[in-house]
Amino acid sequence: MTNPVLVEVVRSDFVESTHRGALVVTAPDGSVRFAAGDVERPVYPRSSNKPLQAVGMLRAGLTIGDEELALGCGSHNGEPGHVEGVLSMLSRAGLTEDALACPPAFPLHEPSMLAAAGKRRAAMNCSGKHAAMLMTCVQLGWPTEDYAAATHPLQEVVRATVADLTSETIETVGVDGCGAPLFAFSLTGLARSFGRLVTAMGGPDRRVADAVRAHPWRVAGTGREDTVLMRNIEGLLVKGGAEGVHAFALPDGTALAVKIDDGAARARIPLLLATLRHLGIDPGDEAADLARDAVLGGGKRVGELRVVGGLFG
Amino acid sequence: MTNPVLVEVVRSDFVESTHRGALVVTAPDGSVRFAAGDVERPVYPRSSNKPLQAVGMLRAGLTIGDEELALGCGSHNGEPGHVEGVLSMLSRAGLTEDALACPPAFPLHEPSMLAAAGKRRAAMNCSGKHAAMLMTCVQLGWPTEDYAAATHPLQEVVRATVADLTSETIETVGVDGCGAPLFAFSLTGLARSFGRLVTAMGGPDRRVADAVRAHPWRVAGTGREDTVLMRNIEGLLVKGGAEGVHAFALPDGTALAVKIDDGAARARIPLLLATLRHLGIDPGDEAADLARDAVLGGGKRVGELRVVGGLFG
Repeated sequence: MTNPVLVEVVRSDFVESTHRGALVVTAPDGSVRFAAGDVERPVYPRSSNKPLQAVGMLRAGLTIGDEELALGCGSHNGEPGHVEGVLSMLSRAGLTEDALACPPAFPLHEPSMLAAAGKRRAAMNCSGKHAAMLMTCVQLGWPTEDYAAATHPLQEVVRATVADLTSETIETVGVDGCGAPLFAFSLTGLARSFGRLVTAMGGPDRRVADAVRAHPWRVAGTGREDTVLMRNIEGLLVKGGAEGVHAFALPDGTALAVKIDDGAARARIPLLLATLRHLGIDPGDEAADLARDAVLGGGKRVGELRVVGGLFG
Repeated sequence: MTNPVLVEVVRSDFVESTHRGALVVTAPDGSVRFAAGDVERPVYPRSSNKPLQAVGMLRAGLTIGDEELALGCGSHNGEPGHVEGVLSMLSRAGLTEDALACPPAFPLHEPSMLAAAGKRRAAMNCSGKHAAMLMTCVQLGWPTEDYAAATHPLQEVVRATVADLTSETIETVGVDGCGAPLFAFSLTGLARSFGRLVTAMGGPDRRVADAVRAHPWRVAGTGREDTVLMRNIEGLLVKGGAEGVHAFALPDGTALAVKIDDGAARARIPLLLATLRHLGIDPGDEAADLARDAVLGGGKRVGELRVVGGLFG
């Protein structure tokens, strides 16, 4: 099945480029409310996976505060507060930055990048997740050296948790950009799992949803999409990932998952905003600005990123 | 017609993302030697247009040196030598940087960007083309204020030249990122026009091809794809553009044009290199490194950008 065009790049009234992909909206009971494209085929959820991985850590027995849990679910900016949070998590586990398996990186946040002395592991956007994984291992008495191996007991629990939350069998396990195991599952499973987190009556599932929503800066950072969306839309849980993935859940459990076939980041936010509006949610001016949908010519707007007409029928 | 997948993004043996597009190779006589996807539909050639626009300026009567002509065909890095070249062109035309219609920008070249005092028009990658357009107007006695308007006599000549070189009727005229008119035509027309430039026995067509090939640094800059490719492959004329466009011609007139549907830059060079190899050209190690085709996990190679098997039959 060839996925449909979801977003067109229009320059001077001419469609210059197109982004195909798949998008699903699930109802609070997990049933499919709307789908475009193949939403049953496994995809890599990339960092949209992180809240599910964090549930796995809690189910394994991790004891952690809410702010650190949010950082553990985050793709953070590497701002000073993020780096300090990661170093604090490691320190209390009796570990140092060297224990992180994620590669050294510059902060995503430009002022922090310009002020950085160089790349470091704690500044890599996934370092909060890695620090939370290490904390889990130390608390449970598991080895910390190979915590990112797919065969490590921690990753076995995470995998079982992801399978449970998505109601899917995990058949493909890859390596994420940060070096952690990456589980392939369907967009329907991803949306359904986000819906489960926000509607859980308690327990690790709900705790992750609440920690993320209470500390949106820890999950991304200054000016970032997920932070701005969660600050502007009451009760929204949202988490983006690399290669064109994004997922959200509204407080009633209605949830979205999208994957752009070609991995383009630019196509996601216009789709998220269009879906929110279709669901009757006004994202507000600050969130609407995140679409960055202007196509420029000579510094002036001459076109736009346009969600295809009739997407929601 | 839905264009085929040309490049797959593979992570841990799983196809994570795909890039569709169209690619054509034309023979020296302009006939289609190989085609994938719809290569007859008009597309915006973006900066792959620049050599054709430069031929138009020469046909209009522009007098210019070879190095400046190459800069006029370029999407330059904004390195000091590029900026000085543009300022010199303007100065000799009796104009200043303010005459440029392209928007202020930081240099593409990172060290030059970090050393820049701010954005400026002369550092914008298209400023050489704009300076050459202004030189043409001054030499021909045409107004310089509205030189980037599609109705300006210069742009009428450029349009007629593009139609001639591509053997196509130009029906769609848009605004390019730099503010100059942008003509839509087919990939076949783009490849054919590049083949014509390198095989012309003389005149403006051949002069543009020779100036670009003699001064590859002026056309792009330090470390850039087109510069490295032309330095490593004898007689190659190559010019990339935004939104996933690239075109080249070999000295015998065999030519390629490609457009990635989604506009992804990353998919182009693997396709160019695969096509060169299919045509019996070894791009050499330095050019092969341009593919940047490694997909990383935890800093290690766990996959690749892969040109689909059997593309050339």
